[in-house]
Amino acid sequence: MNAPTATAHLLPEITLRPVPQALLDALAARFGAQCSTAQAVREQHGRDEGSLQAPPPAAVVFAENTRDVQDAVRLANDCAVPVIPFAAGSSLEGHLLAVQGGISLDVNRMNAVLSVNAEDLTVTVQPGITRKQLNDAIKDTGLFFPIDPGADASIGGMAATRASGTNAVRYGTMRENVLALEVVLASGEAIRTGTRAKKSSAGYDLTRMMVGSEGTLGVITELTIRLYPLPEALSAAVCSFPSVGDAVRCTIEIIQLGVPIARCELIDANTVRAVNAHSRLGLREEPMLLMEFHGSPASVKEQAETVQELASEHGGKAFEWASTPEERTRLWSARHMAYFAGLQTRPGCTAITTDACVPISQLATAVLESVHEAEASGIPYFMVGHVGDGNFHMGYLIDPASSAERARAEQLNHQLVARALRLGGTCTGEHGVGVHKMGFLLDEAGTGAVAAMRAIKQALDPKNILNPGKIFSA
Amino acid sequence: MNAPTATAHLLPEITLRPVPQALLDALAARFGAQCSTAQAVREQHGRDEGSLQAPPPAAVVFAENTRDVQDAVRLANDCAVPVIPFAAGSSLEGHLLAVQGGISLDVNRMNAVLSVNAEDLTVTVQPGITRKQLNDAIKDTGLFFPIDPGADASIGGMAATRASGTNAVRYGTMRENVLALEVVLASGEAIRTGTRAKKSSAGYDLTRMMVGSEGTLGVITELTIRLYPLPEALSAAVCSFPSVGDAVRCTIEIIQLGVPIARCELIDANTVRAVNAHSRLGLREEPMLLMEFHGSPASVKEQAETVQELASEHGGKAFEWASTPEERTRLWSARHMAYFAGLQTRPGCTAITTDACVPISQLATAVLESVHEAEASGIPYFMVGHVGDGNFHMGYLIDPASSAERARAEQLNHQLVARALRLGGTCTGEHGVGVHKMGFLLDEAGTGAVAAMRAIKQALDPKNILNPGKIFSA
Repeated sequence: MNAPTATAHLLPEITLRPVPQALLDALAARFGAQCSTAQAVREQHGRDEGSLQAPPPAAVVFAENTRDVQDAVRLANDCAVPVIPFAAGSSLEGHLLAVQGGISLDVNRMNAVLSVNAEDLTVTVQPGITRKQLNDAIKDTGLFFPIDPGADASIGGMAATRASGTNAVRYGTMRENVLALEVVLASGEAIRTGTRAKKSSAGYDLTRMMVGSEGTLGVITELTIRLYPLPEALSAAVCSFPSVGDAVRCTIEIIQLGVPIARCELIDANTVRAVNAHSRLGLREEPMLLMEFHGSPASVKEQAETVQELASEHGGKAFEWASTPEERTRLWSARHMAYFAGLQTRPGCTAITTDACVPISQLATAVLESVHEAEASGIPYFMVGHVGDGNFHMGYLIDPASSAERARAEQLNHQLVARALRLGGTCTGEHGVGVHKMGFLLDEAGTGAVAAMRAIKQALDPKNILNPGKIFSA
Repeated sequence: MNAPTATAHLLPEITLRPVPQALLDALAARFGAQCSTAQAVREQHGRDEGSLQAPPPAAVVFAENTRDVQDAVRLANDCAVPVIPFAAGSSLEGHLLAVQGGISLDVNRMNAVLSVNAEDLTVTVQPGITRKQLNDAIKDTGLFFPIDPGADASIGGMAATRASGTNAVRYGTMRENVLALEVVLASGEAIRTGTRAKKSSAGYDLTRMMVGSEGTLGVITELTIRLYPLPEALSAAVCSFPSVGDAVRCTIEIIQLGVPIARCELIDANTVRAVNAHSRLGLREEPMLLMEFHGSPASVKEQAETVQELASEHGGKAFEWASTPEERTRLWSARHMAYFAGLQTRPGCTAITTDACVPISQLATAVLESVHEAEASGIPYFMVGHVGDGNFHMGYLIDPASSAERARAEQLNHQLVARALRLGGTCTGEHGVGVHKMGFLLDEAGTGAVAAMRAIKQALDPKNILNPGKIFSA
């Protein structure tokens, strides 16, 4: 681990590459109404949910099948023009910004469920389907797709950023849940990685290499992912703790005992206040764990009893069950609204969001010191954590017009990441690197490992057309 | 999927690259007694547990630390001489054969536990430690490392082949259980991949790229892997079924119901006979599931009740519990001895072992047709399956002196793999490609995906020194 340099993390480098008129003409000829250069369309495709900005792409192609993707990529590759895959637009780290210009490749129309294999607990989908659309489509099978990053992200985008969220403590992340892909490479060739078999030792793990590659190695056009039986029983609870440290130490014991808890989320007192205000809840304004248990009725009961006991050993109070589906939905919606609840505490603000993940034994240190620094800075913030995984998010609520506030928030982020790395963790648990964390990735992985990533990128995309300027500068 | 070509899978291509005397001198000067060119030592390092053969390496270097590995790789890279990492020698597909000559890099002396992080359920080890040594070393922590490929393989070798085994249905494979690596690249540079955080979205997943790369992309010198709490309760059972199909259909329902079964192994009647003879057991000589349940006492009881009910719905008879640790050990030892028990049914024979893995819904078809073909061929065989994962092994017991028998067994393997691919599966669930399955990998992944693997290999190892001639021909 090298010492991070704060200034490297502030803003993306914008160096637009030329988009020849001949390419725009060729795209128009090939795609007709599926290609747009309208200002509003381009602008909508040139940003994500993060706070960084860049000029919009020169055109947007709306792909409807793999062949469309192949042709668009081939045409762009011929002219060495960047191609940026786009679906829900819910990424946070500037992944979708056209920092080198080029075209946006929208796959939202590729949102079909291609096949459900209920016996095998797998489903094959196109990349543009969102997780809610998918779960709606399979709701009669008795199965569900558990990965839940909060936003109604596309499955393709979730794979591209190696997303996870509240259920990951039990069901894993996209890393564990993608079995196979169809991917269009920079040459326009479509390859298949993986099979529907649950495990394989057949050569390099191209599936896992594509998962988390943020559109820089290929455009995902098909995914086979794992499903899970809907739990027979399901129960949720909230519990307040005297301090964040107590809540975290309770979580460590839950994990260490092997309790198969499905969700274990931490919200600090500050954020409980925001959530109460936003969602009109009457939660105790103290650090709180939100938990969910999945399994057979007996297993859920046993898990809940074990956890309730551990909670009381750590000063947990007001252990409350959300036993009806309505109560559960209300509770988890409130959790998912924490981001927006946070934003509403400072009207007109924008959020700089952190995403460090540390070994769980280090989580109390990581969270407490970060909260302490945020308090000292005077910048309003919120804090939520997928605490069972050691992953937590601070949102620094800044005035978008104030470069001083942005710099202070980035400085806090910088200190937070440096600490996470010292504690054996990572700069990003689930959001990805994008343009925002390129410097942090260097700090974390070291120049040798990033050079290996670059070498792979260059081998597979010699003209550097696939979402260039993300993950590492180029 | 392309049509497989049987002849491509028979024997490794041997094209020895020159090993300059200057390199041997340099290794002797640098490593002294840690370097050997003795015939017996070289021969022991030039083979694995599979049945393929090649001339031994020109020298063996016994590395004692990362610096040793770096220096050996650097010296070899300077002369473009192959380096083949070696530990337990228990691989099965010719992974350790010096098919292009070169030197063997023995890491058995690098077998230390570097740190145990019990709170985080992780341990950091050197690559030469075996899974039994590791579990002995941590037995006072209340934790264990569950991955169990049968052989007492090294953790480094298990990572290199993406191994799994009997516990994978619950605990996953090496793919899911390696968190971070130190790897020496072809240049001699050591990089670190991953962190101790449980999840990460920080750039390309170099960890997963190294896991399963069979020593062709780097030499693993350190691994951080996941541990699990020793289950509070543990119980094993055997159950006989009227047919392999009934046993498999029972397994499908177990998995579909989400029962967190820890082991679910199928043995066919033929193999039960061999195991009975070898281990002096009195098991019913019918297709049989061997199962194990881990969890709290209540959860284990519930799992067992559910499974017992499902088994009887599928004609299961003689459901028997192995309740004492001694009975369990005897049962699982018998399972692990199936390979040797099989060999003993035909004295002097050698086994050609298959390793296909299919979606579980296709497992009955895959197994039954393979067994049918083996019966028809007249070649003695055994069959065991990690049936909860859709993975099964046939062992064809051939006279090593008979090229006709070998060709017949390879033809059976060929038909079995072709069928597995048609059914949506993989040619290798856990053994890896080595030299034996290179043709099958092409059939499975297609030329485009294998070309992508080659491009990555070339980018990271331009002189093709790291275990060349494995996974794909080069």
